[in-house]
This record gives sequence, structure tokens and C-alpha cells, in this order.
Amino acid sequence: MFRKGLLIVLSGPSGTGKGTVLRLVRESCHNVKFSVSATTRTPREGEENGINYFFKTREEFEQMILNNEFVEWVKYCDHYYGTPKKWIQDNIENGFDVILEIEVEGALNIKKQFPDCVTIFMLPPSFEELEHRIIARGTEDKEVIKKRLIKARNELGFVDKYDYVNINNTVEDSVREINSIILAEKLRYHRNMEIINELGLKGGSTK
Amino acid sequence: MFRKGLLIVLSGPSGTGKGTVLRLVRESCHNVKFSVSATTRTPREGEENGINYFFKTREEFEQMILNNEFVEWVKYCDHYYGTPKKWIQDNIENGFDVILEIEVEGALNIKKQFPDCVTIFMLPPSFEELEHRIIARGTEDKEVIKKRLIKARNELGFVDKYDYVNINNTVEDSVREINSIILAEKLRYHRNMEIINELGLKGGSTK
Repeated sequence: MFRKGLLIVLSGPSGTGKGTVLRLVRESCHNVKFSVSATTRTPREGEENGINYFFKTREEFEQMILNNEFVEWVKYCDHYYGTPKKWIQDNIENGFDVILEIEVEGALNIKKQFPDCVTIFMLPPSFEELEHRIIARGTEDKEVIKKRLIKARNELGFVDKYDYVNINNTVEDSVREINSIILAEKLRYHRNMEIINELGLKGGSTK
Repeated sequence: MFRKGLLIVLSGPSGTGKGTVLRLVRESCHNVKFSVSATTRTPREGEENGINYFFKTREEFEQMILNNEFVEWVKYCDHYYGTPKKWIQDNIENGFDVILEIEVEGALNIKKQFPDCVTIFMLPPSFEELEHRIIARGTEDKEVIKKRLIKARNELGFVDKYDYVNINNTVEDSVREINSIILAEKLRYHRNMEIINELGLKGGSTK
């Protein structure tokens, strides 16, 4: 009895707490893999090829763009970043659930190419709380904070494009909720048709 | 912050194990209520009005039918049985999740009247296992068993009308899966629009 994996796409403004929650989701689900991006930037200390990123030369990356090998890509600060399609497809085919953390425009592109993906938008408990969390990081000056908040407000306008919302009140609740979404989505009828057929449960006559 | 409750409709052939699983779901979720049917049959020893059934006279029941107070009703062995609409509506409005265990035709009727309900079909691990479980009860003769199996086969043909399937391999997994479906469905975007508006997270400009 074999199931294909699920593609889960998570978005949410910076400061919502996606990183912490996803780390704990990964620890609690052995079947979950995180999508690995490709990039042309130089590896940082400790970063491994195929784990943190697929490190590519500019020529390799541009060829991949021409070959339509990315579900989405961007150029940022003179470096390319992209999500390779094949890695996602291979893992899903092999039964792994793949989580992709990505900003809203990228998420909508992925939904077009993987219509069966499950999209989750992570929200802070309130806009004031988001403001508080961004300021509490203490790493940025006022102007950067203001820009981040404007960006967050813009991103929040896309929440109605997502299947699920997850309000990050506590890390524990968020982890439990995301795990429940993954488990529940695997139980949807349309993802179990083959299994039901294999079990001999549908159609045919009684012996 | 207030949410409406969810209506969960569960079906599945007799012998699948719905009763045991639902009892444990109720024990693990304080927010869940089981739909109480109305009937014209006489209360049995220990049965309480409003808990096991709403006990009605024939005249009362027939008036309720005429008033369109049931989401569905049947006449069986000269007694009426029906699911009162108002009880479900009141509990959902008050934030309770209501679970309704019902056969397939009834479930499809309920979906028409409560389009936002969540439907789950519980399956045995295999048809052979279902046969085994029905025979193991040891309470029925061969002819009755055969009738039950034919009925089960017919019911299984409706599985594609349901949102979710739950294969009852073990009681523990089934309880966990049904709890996950309930939790996940509460996180769907369309059920959280009011909360998102209240939190001031969508639209408007940044302060």
C-alpha cells in the first residue's frame, strides 16, 4: 500500500515564526522533507551542497532557467535563487511530504504548477504583535522595520488565496495544527482512490 | 475571538468500528457533541430524554415533519426516527462541533442542507476483514450476515461522495485521524475570515 507524498506550501510575513515552527514539524514527522533551493551565491561556513542549497554557477543556473527546471526563481542582490521542480517531483513520487517555505507570489506560482499542493498562511496573533516581534529582533533600524511592516501588510492581503490559516499564538499549537493539516489532507478521498481500489472495497459483487 | 462549530458527518458500513472510534473521539475532545435523534419508540431502561433520544409521540413527530424540522427522517419497524435541524444549528452557533453518525443516503441529504459540513467515510481494512468482523459478532444467522454484506457493498459505492476516508486499521490511528480532520477543517481560510478581520490583519494601511 503506497501513497504519493504531499506538497505543503507555507507563507507568512517575516517575524511570524515560520522557521521555529517548521523546525519542530520536521522533528515530529520523519516523513517530511524541506525543499532545497538552488542558488548562485557562495556557500557560507558550514553550508552543504544538497542540504542547505544546491550551489550552482551562474552559467548552470541560467541554463536551468532556459530548460524550465524551476517552479519559481528570483534574482536578488545579484544572485539567483530558485526552487528546482525535479527535486520536489521525485520526493513526492517517492512518498515524502515536501514543505516549501516561500513568499506569496512564489506560492501562487507553485499552486499553478502543483494544483494538488496544500497552502498554509501563517499569521501572527495580531499586527501589533508582529510589529513587536520585528522590533524585538533589535537587528534593524527604524527605516528597515517600517519597510518590513509595509511588506507584511501587503503579504497579509493574499491570505484569502490560501487553503488554511495558522495563527501562531504558541509554537506548540502551531506545530500541532500543521501536523493535523498534513495528516488530514492525506485522508482526502481523491488522494486515496488507488488504495481503496487495491483493498477491493469499491464496486464488484459480494462473494 | 469566537468560532462557529463544525458539523461532521460520519458514515461507513456496519462492522467498521464507528461506535468505538466515536466514543474515544468524544472522550478526547471536550468540544464535541453527538447529534441526538428524535424517535417515537418507547424509551428503554436507562435511556434519557435529550441524551439518548428526544422521545416524541407520533402526533408530535408528524407535526415536526410537517414543520420541516428534520434534516432527515425515516420510518423503521413502525417507528419514526429523525435528526432535528434546530439542535444541530443551535450547537454549531454556540461553538460546539457536532458529530452525526448516519447512513449514506441520510448523509447526502445533510450535505445538501449543511453544505459546509465535513463528511468522513470509515472503511474497514478490507472487505474480508469486514466479513470477518460481522461474523465474529456471532449474533446473526447466515442469511442476516449475507444481507449485511450486500448492504455494506452497496454503501461502499458511495465513498466517492465523501470529503475524507478513514481506514480503520487500528482504533488509535482512527481516533487520531478523525481528531486531525476536525482540527484541520477549523483552520480552513473560509472558516476564519471573521477572526482575521477582528485581528486587524487584513487590508488597511500600516500605522
